[in-house]
Amino acid sequence: MSKIVSDLIIVGVGLLGSSVGLAVKKHGVADTVIGIDRCRETLDIALRREAVDVVATELDVLAEINAEINDGLAVICTPVRSIVGVAERIAAVNGNLLISDVGSTKVNICRELEQRDLRFVGAHPIAGSEKSGPEFCDADLFQDRLTVLTPTASSRAEDIERLQLFWESLGSQVLLLEPQQHDAFLAKTSHLPHAVAAALASLITEVERPFCGTGFADTTRIASGLPVVWTDIFLDNRLQLLAMLEVFGDRLESLKTALEDSDAPAVTRFLESARQR
Amino acid sequence: MSKIVSDLIIVGVGLLGSSVGLAVKKHGVADTVIGIDRCRETLDIALRREAVDVVATELDVLAEINAEINDGLAVICTPVRSIVGVAERIAAVNGNLLISDVGSTKVNICRELEQRDLRFVGAHPIAGSEKSGPEFCDADLFQDRLTVLTPTASSRAEDIERLQLFWESLGSQVLLLEPQQHDAFLAKTSHLPHAVAAALASLITEVERPFCGTGFADTTRIASGLPVVWTDIFLDNRLQLLAMLEVFGDRLESLKTALEDSDAPAVTRFLESARQR
Repeated sequence: MSKIVSDLIIVGVGLLGSSVGLAVKKHGVADTVIGIDRCRETLDIALRREAVDVVATELDVLAEINAEINDGLAVICTPVRSIVGVAERIAAVNGNLLISDVGSTKVNICRELEQRDLRFVGAHPIAGSEKSGPEFCDADLFQDRLTVLTPTASSRAEDIERLQLFWESLGSQVLLLEPQQHDAFLAKTSHLPHAVAAALASLITEVERPFCGTGFADTTRIASGLPVVWTDIFLDNRLQLLAMLEVFGDRLESLKTALEDSDAPAVTRFLESARQR
Repeated sequence: MSKIVSDLIIVGVGLLGSSVGLAVKKHGVADTVIGIDRCRETLDIALRREAVDVVATELDVLAEINAEINDGLAVICTPVRSIVGVAERIAAVNGNLLISDVGSTKVNICRELEQRDLRFVGAHPIAGSEKSGPEFCDADLFQDRLTVLTPTASSRAEDIERLQLFWESLGSQVLLLEPQQHDAFLAKTSHLPHAVAAALASLITEVERPFCGTGFADTTRIASGLPVVWTDIFLDNRLQLLAMLEVFGDRLESLKTALEDSDAPAVTRFLESARQR
């Protein structure tokens, strides 16, 4: 695999960020992987896991490192509501960098950054884990997963192409979508399931825990994701999530009606419709 | 392990029934495992997997096989709403057998059978799989799992003790509970999660499927259980399940309010309360 970027900058080296670094190094996609994080301990773990080559706690190092090249790529892997601010600061420090992210929501981020004078293409690899932190990084996290790019009217064609090549090099399939379409899909396939899993998990008391089987563990696994990360996602996509909570509530109401009426065929239809998916 | 029963009769040799057979044979708990199922093909698979030694499609073979012994145990592994009828037929054919089951609900079964003149002690191993059929049987399915026994006032002490020894021999921890308490716990830890997973899965269309990550797969895995089995469970425990659906709905309402108000601390509290469980 030939180099796609000279310097890859990862801002936020948690599980996702350090997995990007590890995958980039595995596939030889960049010359140097620079990890930036406000937390020194997180950087140390990422270094030990060899997910990054160089580390820094401040973005201003980017002015120095990338002063004379123009094919650097900065991938922002912070909670979604800080991505716009981080992108603006990166652009202020070094205007030559292509900036992208891995955020689970895209509408607000792309709308904000479209209006700025910077090179940004939004991205979301649909891959992750209920775990968090660079200690759980995985070079194969993106292998055979879908990565959605959400370019806007202001995105340059060559930047979209390079980002597509970047994610394909990490084993991902790449799909281009409107930010609005992305957020609608993800509200249903990711944010609603997370909300539901969290609601389920929150109901269980200490005395009930022994009665939870492996099915319960599966169903609620995602609820152990970092609350700070998911608060951002929920709020950033709150209108779509609210709409999905309505649709989901209606579905449960239909089950309630069937149970109240002891309507066996209706209960079976409810269960069959799930199984066919 | 010394023999706990001479003949073990399993009625319904699906995944659970054939796993009981396989575990019994692994641990040497019975002399002979007799599998009874109306489906010849299911019996053939159970035989090939060596989960049972002898098979029959009708219960009347029990008259013959157990005529002169009185320590036989029949474990009913059929959908919950057929357990009472099967128990009555077993008792009619052979009054010497101790009868038990593996049903996920206990109140109605135990209440009905308490009034009959037969030796019944209800049981529920909290173990299973989203898969179905004897091809997926597992000798270790009950290892380190909890099995709840729900004896009633009419249960004999020696029968309870023997059934406890039986499940412990298969690697289970055994706990005695009131049927009502069992069904209340399971409504929350199993039946509600199943309903919720099914509702989630049923919402996903073909076009949205590529956007489902591993988290979605985990959350909805249990929804692929057999609809006929789960219709029975839902209807048999419908009042407790309806109560849990209310509690769950209230929890989701609290999230909706937080989202409508863009109340970040409230969203975080919602997510934190799930994570602490």
